[in-house]
Amino acid sequence: MSDGRRKVTLVEVGPRDGLQILERILPTDDKLAWIEAERAAGMRHFEVASFVPARLLPQMADATEVVALAKALPGLEISALVPNVKGAEAAIAAGADVLVVPLSASEAHSRANVRRTPEEMVAQVAAIVGLCRVADRPVRVDAGIATAFGCTIQGAVPEEAVLRLAADCVTAGADSLGLADTVGYANPDQVRRLVTKVRAEVGPFLKGAHFHDTRGLALANVVAALDGGIRRFDSSLGGLGGCPHAPGASGNVATEDLAFMLEAMGYDTGVDLPALLAAREILARLLPGEALHGKLAQAGLPKSFPILEQRVA
Amino acid sequence: MSDGRRKVTLVEVGPRDGLQILERILPTDDKLAWIEAERAAGMRHFEVASFVPARLLPQMADATEVVALAKALPGLEISALVPNVKGAEAAIAAGADVLVVPLSASEAHSRANVRRTPEEMVAQVAAIVGLCRVADRPVRVDAGIATAFGCTIQGAVPEEAVLRLAADCVTAGADSLGLADTVGYANPDQVRRLVTKVRAEVGPFLKGAHFHDTRGLALANVVAALDGGIRRFDSSLGGLGGCPHAPGASGNVATEDLAFMLEAMGYDTGVDLPALLAAREILARLLPGEALHGKLAQAGLPKSFPILEQRVA
Repeated sequence: MSDGRRKVTLVEVGPRDGLQILERILPTDDKLAWIEAERAAGMRHFEVASFVPARLLPQMADATEVVALAKALPGLEISALVPNVKGAEAAIAAGADVLVVPLSASEAHSRANVRRTPEEMVAQVAAIVGLCRVADRPVRVDAGIATAFGCTIQGAVPEEAVLRLAADCVTAGADSLGLADTVGYANPDQVRRLVTKVRAEVGPFLKGAHFHDTRGLALANVVAALDGGIRRFDSSLGGLGGCPHAPGASGNVATEDLAFMLEAMGYDTGVDLPALLAAREILARLLPGEALHGKLAQAGLPKSFPILEQRVA
Repeated sequence: MSDGRRKVTLVEVGPRDGLQILERILPTDDKLAWIEAERAAGMRHFEVASFVPARLLPQMADATEVVALAKALPGLEISALVPNVKGAEAAIAAGADVLVVPLSASEAHSRANVRRTPEEMVAQVAAIVGLCRVADRPVRVDAGIATAFGCTIQGAVPEEAVLRLAADCVTAGADSLGLADTVGYANPDQVRRLVTKVRAEVGPFLKGAHFHDTRGLALANVVAALDGGIRRFDSSLGGLGGCPHAPGASGNVATEDLAFMLEAMGYDTGVDLPALLAAREILARLLPGEALHGKLAQAGLPKSFPILEQRVA
């Protein structure tokens, strides 16, 4: 682990972002089996649930149980999505380490997704930060800025809106920020430009990026974000997931393809790739008939892959 | 066209690299219909055939006819793959503008693919350059260095082998060079590093790059190559193609995804994206049952896509 390679943190968001788009409801035990399989492959960061009313997202009705069970696994940092104070209270009670508050730089998407304006969501961030500060253990607040690179409803999103929202979230007390291309509109030049601008605005508070592979550009956008200094990426095993407001979206960047690219580039993700591909097979068995994405699983690791050779030796 | 945007040249190689891997043989008329559809979308550079014995590649048995018919379409630059002097003679007679000579930085791949060592292929380049110099019109020689980033047979390929081969090709009189990741082993860090080194070795002779999307990294590798100064990329509509020596390979980077990314980044590819997607539909009808790749066709152009808006306006 301390071999001098640059570290990158991967956050497996499939149990939240992947499952919420499916028609079916994955049983709690199966969610845990998925998380355990990726834990065995070295993954340590998971976003496992969304604390929203079960009538809106029945796939997340077991959020409390999933967070508690995932926290019982040693060594994991567990995040949960919380759109409001009520959700935050439940997530803190369940044992979450990180509360991800979804904001949208697009006002239209914000209203459609969380039924609040971006400004109203900043007020939610402040209230949730207040809750965390009186919790009996450290709980962090991560502001996830969705539609940062464009929106299926309103089209282009002004960079100024993203910069203002990022600054407002920091003022509201968020511990960190992430930029999300929820709908697969981002391109590498835009990512480099916006990451640089947001970093100039809020400095090290900008921690993460979340790319969907809707138009095949997710890994190219990751490279651009790396150039901008981002070292934390969301992904979903098998590229599971999408966005209810992005028709035809093929989902999050695949964890296995992302980990492969980063390891090939010399980054240390902590992930054992053969074990991650084995976890993907387990996921495929848990979700029969669901389309999984990603190319590494089909092609396999290259013969020249140095990390594999070191680990096999 | 002269709107100040940086230009990038796309070379559609599907009629050669895409079709050569298929079991079926696409009729000559259908090849032309494909080329004409992409020409209507603004594509101007095509690699349309491989001049090899028909018993080895029956899909390319009509190479002479395809080159001649493609040259009859106005405004196109037509390339053909020629592994030897005999092929070069036929390609020149047919009317090709550019002869692409395939070399391999991997000696094992070179023997498997063209039954010659890399050094023997450099001698072929010299002989083919000699032929072109006595032709009655300008014919250029482009040296395509395959397995520049790794090889399914021998594994890692030393960068020194690539640098030496590039220098030898220039000495042999090649007009330009391209680096090819025939088997999908390249990663963006490696691409930036090798492109920079080859450029230091041979300067502006390094013109093109050819990436396969075997492990999903093709567009990320394109961004890295752009950073290194490459402005000419091979691609295949619908990601058609692969490599006989790369089992499971999913083919060339998809022309439509590549053009979309470049246009989104502000480059001028000369391509009309809706027309290119229409050409892809024509290709799908010409190749019923064949798997096409690429994500743009499924997701569609973003609502915020500026080029589209300008053209619609």
